[in-house]
Amino acid sequence: MNTDTPAPSAALLLIGNELLSGRTQDKNLAFIGSRLAARGIVLCEARVIADIPAVIVQAINELRARHTYVFTTGGIGPTHDDITADCVAEAMGVALEVHPEAERRLLAYFQSRDVEANADRMRMARVPVGGTLIDNPVSIAPGFQIENVYVMAGVPRIMQSMFESIEPCLATGPRIDSISVICNLAEGTLANALRQLQEEFSTLDLGSYPMSAEDGQRVVLVAKGSDHEALVRVEGRLQSMVQSLNGQLFQS
Amino acid sequence: MNTDTPAPSAALLLIGNELLSGRTQDKNLAFIGSRLAARGIVLCEARVIADIPAVIVQAINELRARHTYVFTTGGIGPTHDDITADCVAEAMGVALEVHPEAERRLLAYFQSRDVEANADRMRMARVPVGGTLIDNPVSIAPGFQIENVYVMAGVPRIMQSMFESIEPCLATGPRIDSISVICNLAEGTLANALRQLQEEFSTLDLGSYPMSAEDGQRVVLVAKGSDHEALVRVEGRLQSMVQSLNGQLFQS
Repeated sequence: MNTDTPAPSAALLLIGNELLSGRTQDKNLAFIGSRLAARGIVLCEARVIADIPAVIVQAINELRARHTYVFTTGGIGPTHDDITADCVAEAMGVALEVHPEAERRLLAYFQSRDVEANADRMRMARVPVGGTLIDNPVSIAPGFQIENVYVMAGVPRIMQSMFESIEPCLATGPRIDSISVICNLAEGTLANALRQLQEEFSTLDLGSYPMSAEDGQRVVLVAKGSDHEALVRVEGRLQSMVQSLNGQLFQS
Repeated sequence: MNTDTPAPSAALLLIGNELLSGRTQDKNLAFIGSRLAARGIVLCEARVIADIPAVIVQAINELRARHTYVFTTGGIGPTHDDITADCVAEAMGVALEVHPEAERRLLAYFQSRDVEANADRMRMARVPVGGTLIDNPVSIAPGFQIENVYVMAGVPRIMQSMFESIEPCLATGPRIDSISVICNLAEGTLANALRQLQEEFSTLDLGSYPMSAEDGQRVVLVAKGSDHEALVRVEGRLQSMVQSLNGQLFQS
């Protein structure tokens, strides 16, 4: 189930009442999860929490002590419920101050668009002391990094552009690849042989995921890990396993 | 930001490596979040965690001590990575045993479909001692409830059918309703007036959510709460606010 090589770990904090009420379908977890995996960073957990200061502060402190990286999304806009920067400053025990470069960028942006740089918009220039900016190519208002915490916007398009600007600076772990084999056998038919393969290929993570196809049920067998030689071997073994159980293989 | 009336609280535990790797897009949070809100149960947090026993056990114990209800999804199938039932039993300090009614249902189902009731499939009949079954109208293998923890499947269609079978038995809180007003003003333009409205309507939660429309950007202003008279009043006030800021209102 594990690799022997150590890898950087991460936690993701999705902040916003609208995610918990079902009003908004989160799309940030899947994006960040797959991008971190491609870099060899293990996303160990994600939490979805409400816009409540004490809850946000506690979650940040708990997760930043435990993981190489903490990424947050949401709560850095101009309105009263945008409290992430305040909470990160409180969690770090530092002041929240106007960051001169953030202020400069925002003033130039608002001026160019003939938009009033009112107090609410300029809240977005505040950064915990010691933090550095995360660029926002989409709508300028920056995120920030302080210690191992990376604070990003909640709107997926903006979050993605922010993530791409920090991505090259993140540590890399052993590259985690995956192979998958699709078949028409039920999980209950595959389970025993799959368990034996998992025991044999202990450097890989084997999983099975049911899915619906137009002409019936499928199970996708997935093997993941950084042991590339083992991945190649297990793919052949998974295919033989399906055939020996009288199952049919499908292209992915 | 709060209502004065107490409401049942809940936490959701989404279990599965495939959610953290970005392989699978979670759809269970939004469903459960909206159904709980409709019942007046406040979903306070959701966690997405990996298939690691110690992590699952710790999360269950932490959350069940803190909330009226804990709902879990995922990890109750027949394969080696389906370990949720084992972890719940461990968290509760009870044995995991074959539940006679679960066994009966599974045997009848497998027999009717001419499927072998092998040891892996029959793992799905195991329930922590003291647990009661949650019906699964889709694929029979039941979930279970023990104390305030409700264990459901991860496949959305199955999870939903399980949730609907327990829904009538859950406590209800003050019904939380919401109104929304859509306009073409930027959040930075609305922020100050919105903050004042939030202070005035302290029994409601006011939020603003940017969204893209075909002909430009919109902001959806949402008010939520169980104070119905206040919801009616705030809707009119939000509309007046938009008009006084020279914004345009749109139908939802």
